Amino acid sequence: MSMGRAKMKCLTIVVESVVGQRVLDDLRACGARGWTVTNARGEGPEHRQISDFEGGNSRIDVIVDEVVSERIWELLERDYFPNFAVTAWLTDVEVARPARYETRK
Amino acid sequence: MSMGRAKMKCLTIVVESVVGQRVLDDLRACGARGWTVTNARGEGPEHRQISDFEGGNSRIDVIVDEVVSERIWELLERDYFPNFAVTAWLTDVEVARPARYETRK
Amino acid sequence: MSMGRAKMKCLTIVVESVVGQRVLDDLRACGARGWTVTNARGEGPEHRQISDFEGGNSRIDVIVDEVVSERIWELLERDYFPNFAVTAWLTDVEVARPARYETRK
Repeated sequence: MSMGRAKMKCLTIVVESVVGQRVLDDLRACGARGWTVTNARGEGPEHRQISDFEGGNSRIDVIVDEVVSERIWELLERDYFPNFAVTAWLTDVEVARPARYETRK
Repeated sequence: MSMGRAKMKCLTIVVESVVGQRVLDDLRACGARGWTVTNARGEGPEHRQISDFEGGNSRIDVIVDEVVSERIWELLERDYFPNFAVTAWLTDVEVARPARYETRK
Repeated sequence: MSMGRAKMKCLTIVVESVVGQRVLDDLRACGARGWTVTNARGEGPEHRQISDFEGGNSRIDVIVDEVVSERIWELLERDYFPNFAVTAWLTDVEVARPARYETRK
């Protein structure tokens, strides 16, 4: 007995923790319905140290469908990449109970 | 000199930490042979807050072959999804030393 | 307005934290330009407990192109797998601003 499975996107965003709540608010506004946050530390591609002070970084993993994924990418490109030390990558994943992640009409 | 590489599945399970040990016991019973656990916090698709109290959430990443992966999915669908705030997704990965992850006969 | 996107590799390395800085130094020497580290705990495929003492494990996620990815794999196979309790897996990902991750000529 399977409850179904579907292909989705896992978008991983690593950002300074001070900006984390703002990102989560934006994810929800884009239509994301759930995420997982872990504390992280890191170093960026320009060897700019992503600060350990003020709580370090947050790694946010959010499972979204294609539509929401594109909305979030556009937001990252417009509001985050130019202004913050943020890294993001997109992975193809398979989820159970896909209806939970689909964009609300 | 390569020790070989093979396609496997990375199954990521995010669950309340109080349930984490039970999940690990079940993973082992299903034939999983190694996992990585990180502390996490999160919010689920129904905007149900996954609790921060009692230790928050655990993110469990387990590398398994197709056979074990299917066994764990069935278990999640039967025992976990109906009863717990649990999120799970499956990613195709490539591992070194694949023999370490193959199902024991 | 897109700043471009490209396929890259996400290499995830889980290693005892005492060895973590050595891994990061090696990643940089191989040409990696950024990584994310989270504290983790785990158990390996031989049911060897990956120690919780001395700080547990570090999960290192590093985004690299194919060339750097191969360099790091060779290093892991030669220097790490025979000597340390290390687990590694490779995932196909898509990144924004790919120029930040490309191998320097």
